[in-house]
Amino acid sequence: MESPAMPGAGAAADIKTTTSDLRGQVGRIQNQVKEIQEVVRMYSSTTGPRRVRRHKVEVMSSDPSESNPYSRLMALKALGVVKNYERVRDFSVALVGIGGVGVSVVEMLTRCGVGKIIIYDYDTIELANMNKMFYRPEQAGWNKTMACRHYCSELNPDTTIEVHNMDITAKENTAKFKESISTGSLDRKEKVSLLIGCVDNLEARELMERFSDEMQLPFMDAVVADDAMSGHVQLIIPGRTGGLEAAPIKTHMEKRAGICPASLPTTDSIIAGLCAQNAIKFLLGFGEVFFLMSYNAITNEFATRMTYPDPRKSSSPPADGY
Amino acid sequence: MESPAMPGAGAAADIKTTTSDLRGQVGRIQNQVKEIQEVVRMYSSTTGPRRVRRHKVEVMSSDPSESNPYSRLMALKALGVVKNYERVRDFSVALVGIGGVGVSVVEMLTRCGVGKIIIYDYDTIELANMNKMFYRPEQAGWNKTMACRHYCSELNPDTTIEVHNMDITAKENTAKFKESISTGSLDRKEKVSLLIGCVDNLEARELMERFSDEMQLPFMDAVVADDAMSGHVQLIIPGRTGGLEAAPIKTHMEKRAGICPASLPTTDSIIAGLCAQNAIKFLLGFGEVFFLMSYNAITNEFATRMTYPDPRKSSSPPADGY
Repeated sequence: MESPAMPGAGAAADIKTTTSDLRGQVGRIQNQVKEIQEVVRMYSSTTGPRRVRRHKVEVMSSDPSESNPYSRLMALKALGVVKNYERVRDFSVALVGIGGVGVSVVEMLTRCGVGKIIIYDYDTIELANMNKMFYRPEQAGWNKTMACRHYCSELNPDTTIEVHNMDITAKENTAKFKESISTGSLDRKEKVSLLIGCVDNLEARELMERFSDEMQLPFMDAVVADDAMSGHVQLIIPGRTGGLEAAPIKTHMEKRAGICPASLPTTDSIIAGLCAQNAIKFLLGFGEVFFLMSYNAITNEFATRMTYPDPRKSSSPPADGY
Repeated sequence: MESPAMPGAGAAADIKTTTSDLRGQVGRIQNQVKEIQEVVRMYSSTTGPRRVRRHKVEVMSSDPSESNPYSRLMALKALGVVKNYERVRDFSVALVGIGGVGVSVVEMLTRCGVGKIIIYDYDTIELANMNKMFYRPEQAGWNKTMACRHYCSELNPDTTIEVHNMDITAKENTAKFKESISTGSLDRKEKVSLLIGCVDNLEARELMERFSDEMQLPFMDAVVADDAMSGHVQLIIPGRTGGLEAAPIKTHMEKRAGICPASLPTTDSIIAGLCAQNAIKFLLGFGEVFFLMSYNAITNEFATRMTYPDPRKSSSPPADGY
């Protein structure tokens, strides 16, 4: 207990103690803040969210400097492979289904600098997806669309990423799906340049084919079989090529208890690579574009063939420009 | 200056100053903490460092639940494609060169659950690499090996990632390179199961071929041409197949001012997919393993062929087991 001998002295001592206490607390907090800052700095220099955020690039240049994100792409022009690489920015692509194949196609088109990508999916990332490219354990529980937009818009801020977290085959969504494709060009005045489907069900593929036909919109369909041992990529130009009936239809496993479809990042990488490669060639008009490419992972066989419109099917007259 | 007019008033003024000082400090700290909280919240809600960190998984199971990172791979066993998928963990692979092709091969082998991957590279990530899969803008300036280890060890903590940040062709490093491969198995008692090269120069490829021959170690070579329009993957089994002389040698551009090699994520994805696919088939013994696969991106041609040992070259006697 304090002695009250000198009035005021006790109060002064109290204040001294309080002040010294506070100083101590402030000092400790400052140290804690320093530690936390250190941890945050460590993060930003490792997984490094956004320390070196890439800025938008006005003009694609073939300047070979290390800080040019387009030097390796624009070199295609310098080397005479592609005449007009910078036109890649004028295109808008709609892509349905960002599982193992679709997500890599989106990533590749983003890295290639495509102007705009519109994505449709309604699935959630699970640890079971960790055998697929792109997905990471810390994304478990996220919407695939959200993860994809976040990742790709950081990867290349010059590409506009629009996402629709929905099932395109649900009745309440088909009109919105069609509308968003019809006005999906960069200036929102025209349809997208290309529709890509990377889905695991025939219903969605048939819906895309129908809209492709109605809108005279090129449609690329990429599929991997449920045993991960085969896949194909098909380009359907309404009125000019065969439709889905021309391609080997994916046979879907009947759901067996305790067995899920298999998938391998390797097969996905090959099919996604073929799909994105064909898309870039189609958009920029270089090399031979294929109409049907099938891959067998067991035998290493790749086969391309032309497909032809089914004369029994009536189709809208072909639009010009393809 | 303080006026000493009233004894004790100076002390009170001192206390006032001190208190005001402390208040100010506490306020500033509170602001700092708020800012830090904001940054941390941004991190955890976006790239989300480690919010859901994946734990090690003792036994690979085919349980189809969403939280099983191996369900889609073990399904290969349930579906009868691969007899022994879980053996993937027993293998150790050494991989040289983590550019556009190599980094995807490492990522795929990690996602497939290969037991151990030893990586060699000495390059730094630049914005010019953003057309390649895996690399992200915020990694600019990092060693490729560091970025790769960090990323892949989070992706799959069951895969041991060992990195060597060095040029294997530099005189001072070749012995270390050979030693690390010779003792690269999981128990460090044997050589690695497979050596993969994804490099852009003949010198490193020839060095790998030499060590492959000396150590009777299978060597897989994956190459993409400087115009990004062709590539090949070759599997060399010492004494049993042809060596590098059997494959189309990459012609290297003479360095032209203002032009760098071109690359496309699409071509890289296809070549990397073929390389990792062939590696998994070779290691686990399913499907047909190919010895030379070449791809032409312009014509969409894929060609496989057998290669044969050059009778003019003396080779060590083939080891058993292949």
